[in-house]
Formats: sequence, C-alpha cells, structure tokens
Amino acid sequence: MAKEKKFVQNITSRDEDFAAWYTDVVKEAKLCDYSSMKGCLNYLPNGYAIWENIQKDLDQRFKETGIENVSLPVLIPESLLQKEKDHVKGFAPEVAWVTQGGGEELEEKCCIRPTSETLFCDVWQKQVKSYRDLPLIWNQWCSVLRWEKTTRPFLRSREFLWQEGHTLHATPEEAEERTKQMHQLYYDFVTEDLAIPLTCGRKTESEKFAGAEATYTIEAMMHDGKALQSGTSHYFGSGFPDTFEIKYLDKENKLHSCYETSWGLSTRIIGAIIMVHGDDSGLVLPPKIAPTQAMIIPIAMQKEGVLDAATNLYKRLQEAEIRIKIDKSDKTPGFKFAEQEMLGIPIRIEIGPKDIENNQAVIVKRNNREKITVSLEDLETKVKEILEDIQKEMYQSAKEFLDSHIKEAKTMEEMKEIATNEIGFIKAMWCGSAECEEEIKSATGGYGSRCIPEEQKQISKKCIHCGKEAKHMVIWGKSY
Amino acid sequence: MAKEKKFVQNITSRDEDFAAWYTDVVKEAKLCDYSSMKGCLNYLPNGYAIWENIQKDLDQRFKETGIENVSLPVLIPESLLQKEKDHVKGFAPEVAWVTQGGGEELEEKCCIRPTSETLFCDVWQKQVKSYRDLPLIWNQWCSVLRWEKTTRPFLRSREFLWQEGHTLHATPEEAEERTKQMHQLYYDFVTEDLAIPLTCGRKTESEKFAGAEATYTIEAMMHDGKALQSGTSHYFGSGFPDTFEIKYLDKENKLHSCYETSWGLSTRIIGAIIMVHGDDSGLVLPPKIAPTQAMIIPIAMQKEGVLDAATNLYKRLQEAEIRIKIDKSDKTPGFKFAEQEMLGIPIRIEIGPKDIENNQAVIVKRNNREKITVSLEDLETKVKEILEDIQKEMYQSAKEFLDSHIKEAKTMEEMKEIATNEIGFIKAMWCGSAECEEEIKSATGGYGSRCIPEEQKQISKKCIHCGKEAKHMVIWGKSY
Repeated sequence: MAKEKKFVQNITSRDEDFAAWYTDVVKEAKLCDYSSMKGCLNYLPNGYAIWENIQKDLDQRFKETGIENVSLPVLIPESLLQKEKDHVKGFAPEVAWVTQGGGEELEEKCCIRPTSETLFCDVWQKQVKSYRDLPLIWNQWCSVLRWEKTTRPFLRSREFLWQEGHTLHATPEEAEERTKQMHQLYYDFVTEDLAIPLTCGRKTESEKFAGAEATYTIEAMMHDGKALQSGTSHYFGSGFPDTFEIKYLDKENKLHSCYETSWGLSTRIIGAIIMVHGDDSGLVLPPKIAPTQAMIIPIAMQKEGVLDAATNLYKRLQEAEIRIKIDKSDKTPGFKFAEQEMLGIPIRIEIGPKDIENNQAVIVKRNNREKITVSLEDLETKVKEILEDIQKEMYQSAKEFLDSHIKEAKTMEEMKEIATNEIGFIKAMWCGSAECEEEIKSATGGYGSRCIPEEQKQISKKCIHCGKEAKHMVIWGKSY
Repeated sequence: MAKEKKFVQNITSRDEDFAAWYTDVVKEAKLCDYSSMKGCLNYLPNGYAIWENIQKDLDQRFKETGIENVSLPVLIPESLLQKEKDHVKGFAPEVAWVTQGGGEELEEKCCIRPTSETLFCDVWQKQVKSYRDLPLIWNQWCSVLRWEKTTRPFLRSREFLWQEGHTLHATPEEAEERTKQMHQLYYDFVTEDLAIPLTCGRKTESEKFAGAEATYTIEAMMHDGKALQSGTSHYFGSGFPDTFEIKYLDKENKLHSCYETSWGLSTRIIGAIIMVHGDDSGLVLPPKIAPTQAMIIPIAMQKEGVLDAATNLYKRLQEAEIRIKIDKSDKTPGFKFAEQEMLGIPIRIEIGPKDIENNQAVIVKRNNREKITVSLEDLETKVKEILEDIQKEMYQSAKEFLDSHIKEAKTMEEMKEIATNEIGFIKAMWCGSAECEEEIKSATGGYGSRCIPEEQKQISKKCIHCGKEAKHMVIWGKSY
C-alpha cells in the first residue's frame, strides 16, 4: 500500500500551497524539467505530447482560415531589430546576443529572435510589389528567447515554444478584421478544446504589445484566482510596413501602405490547463487534447482470460480511434490507478474476472471520479460519449469557478476589501489614464488591468480611482 | 502567349547548367529565399508545406516504432558541449556563441545547438536510475545552426530544419538494433514516400559522425550524378553516456553503462526531391508528399456551366481526401498550366464545355505529360489510381537512372576514366586505410567514399589504390 500512495504523497495539497502544488504536479507527471542551460526547460514526452495535440488542433483551425506555415531564421541582425523604435525599446533589454560565429568575432552581432515581426517584414519587403501579392496570411511554429530573470515551468522561461502568426493586408479594415478573427479563433480553441472559460477584450495602452496599435487578449482564471494571459492578437496599422518600406501598387498603379497583424499562443497555455483543471491527485486533462484518452487497467491480471479480455478492449478502442493505452505492468492496480490519475488521463477502464462474467467493464472518470458500468457491447459508443461528457463537465465546472470569482467594485474601498479578502477578478470603471491604472494596481496589492471587455457594463459613471468621467469598464486581476 | 511562357523562360535548362537550373526552380516555385540574416534561409509557404508533409509521414513512422517527441533548449552551455572530446573537436569550430544576455556579459558563453547529443545526455543523467527507466526512445523536430561559409538553398545553410532522434539502451545489442532499424526506416520512407531510390551502407572511419562508433547512411543520386547524403544513423556505444555518468542499476542492483544512438534527416532532402525528379518545366513532386496533389483548371471558364462543373469536381475530390485546388483566377489556361507544372503538382484536371457534354475530364500527369480522359463517374477512383501510378513511375524512372549510373572499376586507370567521362557512382575495392581513401578522392577529382554497402561484391581481391588486400567494396562518388 505504501507504493499505491506514492504519487499523492509527493504532491503538496492544492489549497495549502498552490505554487508548491503546481511544481509538484509538473514534476510527478514528468511534463518538463530544468535544463543545465540556465532559465531553459526540457519539454519531456508527457508534456510535449500535450503541446503536439494543441498544435494539431490549432493548426487545423488556422488552415481552415487560409493560414500558410513558414519558417524564418532563429537569428535577427542587430540593424534589423532596431528598425522599429518602439519595438526595439520593448525587446532589446531582454534578448541574447550572438557575437561570435565560426571562430570569429562577428562584424554585426545578431540576437536570438524574441519575436519575429522584423523577420517577417524583411521577407515581405522583397515579396510584395502588387495588390496581387496580398494578403499574406503566414504563421510559424517555433521557439523564441527572452532573457528572463526568474523561471517557472511553462509560465516563464527564457526559451518557450509558441506559434506566431504574421499577416499583411491591403487595407486597415481587412487587417483589423483578421486581428479580431484570430482573437475569436483563440477564444473558440481554448474554450472548446481546452475546456478553459475566458474573459477577453482589448489591452490598455500600457499593457499592449511593443509597437502595436491595439492588442486583444484572452485571459483565463487559475484556481488561485490569478489571471494567465493565454493568447494575444495585435493590430499594427502600417507602422512596421512603412518603416520597412513595404508598399504595393493597386490596379491603377498607385502606391499604397500595407497593414499588419500578429498573434501568438505559447506553451504557457499548458500551465493554464494544469492550474484550471488539476487537483490534489494531479493533472486532469481535457479529453480533446489528452495524449492518452483512456487507460485500461486489468484487475486480477494473473487470472485466466483477464489479459486477453483487456487486450481485446484495447484493440477495439484503438480501432475506434480512441487514444488508448493498457497497463500490463506488474505494479498493483492501486498504484496504476494513482499513476493514471497523476497523468490526468480522462478515463480509466477496469476489467476483472467478475466484469468478464457479466460482459461489462467499469469506467472511472478522472474529473469527478464517477464510476460507470458499461456493457461491453456498447463499449466504443459509451467511451466516446463519456469523453464528450467529461469535456463539457470540465468546462462547466471551470466556468462556475470563473463566474463566482468575478466581483464588481464601485469604490476604491470596495475594491481593496475584495482584493484583501477574496481571490479572483474585479470589474471596475476607469478613466483611461495610465497613472490611475498604475495607482489602482499598487493600492490593491497588484490588481492590474487584464482587459477592456467588448461587452461593457456601466457599473458607475466615474473612474474608481480619480473620480473623473469613466471611459471603460476594466477587468482587474493579479496575474502570472 | 508571352505570359504563358513566363515560368519556363525564367528557368535555365537542366542539362545546360544544373546548378543554375536548381537555383531557378527554387526561386520560381517560391520554395525558399535568402534572409537578411546572412547564411540563413526563409522557408516560404510552398517549400515549408513540403517539409510539413515530410514531417507528418515520417513522424507517423516514428511513433509506430515507439518514438516519443520532446523539445530541448536551443542553447548549450560551453562546459556541456566540451564534455565529449571528439564531439567538441568536430563541432566547436562551426558554432555560434551567445556571449551577452539581458544586457550583461554572460559568465559562461553558450552556443546555439549544432546538434543535441550533449543536451539529451544532460536530461538523461537526471532521469535514468534503474533498468525500469530504459530504453528512452526520443526525437525532436527543430532547427540547428552551423556557421557554414557558403550557402545553397536546402543543401547548405547556417540554420537548417531537421529531426534528431536520440535513444538510450541497456545493452549494446539493443542500441545497435535501433541504429539499424532507423537506417531501414529512413530507407523505406525515402524510397516509398519520396520516390527516391537509394544506395546505403556504413560510413568509413573518416566520414563517420564526430564521437560515433558507427554511422549508417542513405545516399541518393542527383540528376547530375552527384550524391546527396540524405539521412544518417549513428551508434555511439557507451562513450557519451559514460562521459556524462549515465548509469543504471539492473535487477540485481549492479551498476551498468548505457548505450546510445542518434539519427537525423533534414530539409536537405527537399533538395534531393528537386534534383532527382525535377525537369525543365520545374518541380515534379511525388504525390505522397505533394502539398497539392491535383489542380483543377477550368477551360473556357466564362462559358455557362464550366465553373459550376469544376467546383463540383473540386468538392467531390476534397471529400475523397485528395489534396485538391482549383484555379479560378483570370489568368489564361496556358499560364495556369505552366504554373501548375512549375509547382510540381502531380496532376492537373482540365474541364471545359466539351468535357461537360461528354461527362468527362482530362487528366494530365506532371511526371510524363500523359493525357488520360476519365469519365466523371469514376473520378475519385481514377484520380487515386493515377496518383499511385505517378508515385511508382517516378520511383521507377529514378531507379533506372541510378542503376545505369553506377559503374564498377578494377584499376585506378579505369576509375579515373569513368570519373572523367561519365557521371554517377563508382564501385571499387578498398583496403580500409584513410590514406588510400584520401588519395583515391584526389586522383579522381573528388570521388569520395559514400558508403560501404551491406551487400558486398568482390570486384577484385585488391585495393584499387595500393594493391594490398581489399577489405570492402565501397561506393565512391562526388557529393553535395
């Protein structure tokens, strides 16, 4: 029995110490670990398989909207990074510089890409001549590097994996539409495939991306009430393209500016999956992106017929395109249960001598531990149904948590009280000034502006901080 | 008509100047271009889509043999790279060094990975304790960087895309078996999916990978008779694991060495696809990895019913899971034909008023321009059959070229004569000494050892160069 409790014993209780719980889950589920290369992560098979499924689903959604993938260099020459002044101001302090190559000092140093706006503009400058060359709807899956001081698995590391989409358009309207389309696509993907409910909207001036005219964000609430920025879409106007001299000739041979967008989602989202859905037994993975959707655990494996019956179920479910595994190892069933729970596998299927006698199997749902006895005749249908149920239940449960942890505040007193005694987000009115934004954050112990939701509600007419006329209702929260 | 000839006019004839032809095809088909980052490539949508299909097919083959994907850092600390002395000697001269990060000089510089053996050993050192932790069968899809002096699209660039597999085993036998299994897997993938015939075998001592005990290679013959090394598999013995102190306890609690392999295939293979299959009209892509397998070109598009009929074919073929496109642009049919040929799309489907009348469409095969009139009733079946035929014919045609360009030589005179007057590979006996290998290469104007095939034939008993007893029959050739 000591063995059976191993995983759970290694995990700090979620409600006792959320940060320690998080680190324990990442470690025990073998999702990633720290590299000897300081500040960088090794994405191990269990963690990377989640990312592969995210890539597969998201990439399919991308391609349905006409996105084409490309791959641009990992390095940016200093002169290229410096072309756009707001952009270089935002990123230069946190890049890594290559100064030697092939045994020689370089004439011009180059940095490892912290993001690739400048590289995309560099390609486009050569490619775009006429209106026939537009739009360009490109994306790349890659890693980027920012020299962060502190590191947390998935949430903050010097190198992280992401996709960065970059598009170029003939009109501002078309570019703005693409920005919003991608914002909506992220929203659909994260809510539907990851079962994570979201708040979303525009970023304030001080929170938007370096060089962008507007940034849209999706923000998820972790189980400790903090926000995780989970995917951003930027509209650049013609700033970058003009700087890079990317112009096109229209049908009448007139020269025009181009309009640009970029948008990205990173491995941070795996942190969100862990912190939204996980519990004291470990990971809980949404069926749609779980590398293994069901684990068969034979009971009394040494008894005649059990392994055969279990293997038969395995084959049937594999043919039905369920991502299925079977645990035939000599560990005890209890240990196998704990391991399957630790890894967040959505369902386990138990089959033993009595089940075989009754032509049934017992299905246990990871999200709420519900046990369902199913007839072997309906196995494939039932497993699919239950996986769909789990996906819905996980979203529903997280949605209830989110909704019950968003409060409204009309005065700074109210806001401070909520900030002190509760966890979650706070809705409050704001005048639009960066000073008020900053002072609200420091007065509440870190409730920064998360986003300006599209759906506005006039909680009051005045800015919660300065009392001047309010411009927006803002969602405020602490964040990762 | 001027427009219609555009693509072909821009391409140098293949037999006139092979190198110029290659560069022209890469440019006109928009596969990749040079970045402002010197020595690096931009992989554009048309080129990257080929790589995506290669990844998809190869990754599926990997996973069927139990391979798990991971992602390790882009950077290697200097001390880690230096741990294995042969390895660092091989790679240190051609790496790029990061010396500044986050605005400060680094205490220890680090290089952009030229290959990741050291990073994998670094992870394993922490992970492997007992026989239960073995084997580890890992792979990563990433880019690596080597500070090359000269650059050619896909064939040689500072940064290139590849997969690198790294595995760790309890016994040398198991590791050797995995090395050979991956060698065979590459062979199957390249011959079956890319329609490229191969010679293959072991590399000589002087040609093997830095730090490896044995290297196996697949070598393709380009249309100019030169070899392109297309995928290598290395057996390391316990050298690396011992250096990194990776040991495991067996069931009796005894400490043992581990045994390692690595294997890789890169975007160079796209160069092979171009240079094996391409012709004076441009690319010719094997149907299995062609991003677009068939292009529908409506004839007399303005006539009533043509666009509807063409769109109907498009929908039917899309449902049949053919990667299909339709060209509804206002370019002339001739221009569209030339463009489809340039891009190497395996078949085009022409449909015009007469075809509609006769309930038929005309299919033209890219590989040999054969025209086949098919009844619309059999469309899906016929298109699938023709795609399969093309795949086979492309392999067959390349195989005939390969076979007819491998000659045998018994004396240096013979070998020099073949090297001077013909193109292709030469089979000749070799004593095993590095001196003879080097001298054969310089005497023949660059015919280096490509591989020692498993299937040996005793052409003569003596080394072609020194006359001493021959150890191996070697395949010699010029190479990219």
